[in-house]
Amino acid sequence: MLPFQFDGDSAYPPSQNTAMVQRYVRVQTAESNIYYGLLQLNREVQVLDAPPWRLGQLTDLMLAADSYQILPPCAPSKIVAVGRNYPAHAQEMGANVPPEPLIFLKPSTATLGVERPILYPAQSQQVDYEGELALVIGERCTRCSPEEAADKIWGYTIANDVTARDLQRRDGQWTRAKGFDSFCPLGPWIVREVSTSARLQTHLNDDPQPRQSTTLDQMVFTPDVLVAYISQVMTLLPGDVVLTGTPEGVGALSVGDRVRIEIEGIGVLENPVQAPLATP
Amino acid sequence: MLPFQFDGDSAYPPSQNTAMVQRYVRVQTAESNIYYGLLQLNREVQVLDAPPWRLGQLTDLMLAADSYQILPPCAPSKIVAVGRNYPAHAQEMGANVPPEPLIFLKPSTATLGVERPILYPAQSQQVDYEGELALVIGERCTRCSPEEAADKIWGYTIANDVTARDLQRRDGQWTRAKGFDSFCPLGPWIVREVSTSARLQTHLNDDPQPRQSTTLDQMVFTPDVLVAYISQVMTLLPGDVVLTGTPEGVGALSVGDRVRIEIEGIGVLENPVQAPLATP
Repeated sequence: MLPFQFDGDSAYPPSQNTAMVQRYVRVQTAESNIYYGLLQLNREVQVLDAPPWRLGQLTDLMLAADSYQILPPCAPSKIVAVGRNYPAHAQEMGANVPPEPLIFLKPSTATLGVERPILYPAQSQQVDYEGELALVIGERCTRCSPEEAADKIWGYTIANDVTARDLQRRDGQWTRAKGFDSFCPLGPWIVREVSTSARLQTHLNDDPQPRQSTTLDQMVFTPDVLVAYISQVMTLLPGDVVLTGTPEGVGALSVGDRVRIEIEGIGVLENPVQAPLATP
Repeated sequence: MLPFQFDGDSAYPPSQNTAMVQRYVRVQTAESNIYYGLLQLNREVQVLDAPPWRLGQLTDLMLAADSYQILPPCAPSKIVAVGRNYPAHAQEMGANVPPEPLIFLKPSTATLGVERPILYPAQSQQVDYEGELALVIGERCTRCSPEEAADKIWGYTIANDVTARDLQRRDGQWTRAKGFDSFCPLGPWIVREVSTSARLQTHLNDDPQPRQSTTLDQMVFTPDVLVAYISQVMTLLPGDVVLTGTPEGVGALSVGDRVRIEIEGIGVLENPVQAPLATP
């Protein structure tokens, strides 16, 4: 088992102004045990006895820094995503901002931990990155108001809504284009709060120029409004994930690339891009 | 708790030529215990110690006929559905049969047991029924051939791919229109085999004239081809469900209606239509 590498994680070790931020992780050990836990400054993980949004309590079990791999920080029963939630991205896609949130689903089998490879499918000739803020739901949420919804958001993490752009255009429905295994990198951890003025940036390889750069306050529909809107349709369950849309600057990935999404106050989600193994 | 009613279940008690068919159910008792089991001719349920596709074995626990409510027969991690898989339905929707299967997702929170109410959402003025054959996946399935996929299909049940037609047209993406809580009635049970010449019929209320009537051999893409195609995109897990598309004759539901979908050799999936309770 390859332990999690912190390569490229410019937010780690934490700078002074984030030193107090708790980082909630989900990890797998060499024995294939899966734990929720708190990441310590020395990279040890103190294990929780349940997911933190299920009131998991700290245990005495401490995992050494080289003894685990970081998984996506939750195991959602569903991932609800939102299209065209930044005006400049809607514009670059030749579309208008919709009058209501435009929702779609990604399958939970698409989730991928930090540093795990995005698999470039043979069916596509254009696979794009889409850096996004992800919301993690803490409580069952049915037909909530925005005020109620705000209390159901347990925390925040980073997602890459990887999209086979050619298949998205060809199919009309976005399920195939956005549903491939490995097309939802998520993590590396969850924090309880994020500033609306926090900056989201996407970098490709060693290029110092970001491909995407926005502050979160550029969203058309804010997290509470999105969660309320979705909850008027479908019940959100603890651990479910809502992707809040991508800003302008989406672009293509190639096999061999590394894509790095950073949100101030959360951290860095970096993944390499690989060709998949041949059909088993 | 309202025990499951067999009202309108014309396939029960089984006729002579289906007397040997095993019916796999998932039930909830008054104590809120959830069990997989085998439905007996006297309507008792013999409990299995795990889902049957997980090699669940029969136990000595027998549930009396009035002591349980039937749930959807599996708890899928995802529901993958297919559009326009019967030529006459594609035609009635003003569309062509696609050259490849057109896939979309319904959230697992949409599943609904037999006899439980479909909730007519306030956001829609046209909610349609869509009777469909549903496949239940028994084994993890990644990048399978049709031959391999055939072995991954553990059994068959009935689904109603309930659709808010007006929202489907307005949104473009089908997630909201097909994703409301209660928009995926599923069941009442799983059987291991179904004939390709079996007839699927949808009835509304007491009208003896079926609204939908087809044999399953009218599908464009057969179950093994559908599962293989989906598995080239996303891994299917045990208990996942694939909806195989609806035939011609889709039409609107009203609050107070009862919609009944029957597939020869499987059974009858009947659900009433209700207005939802006010926002809690």
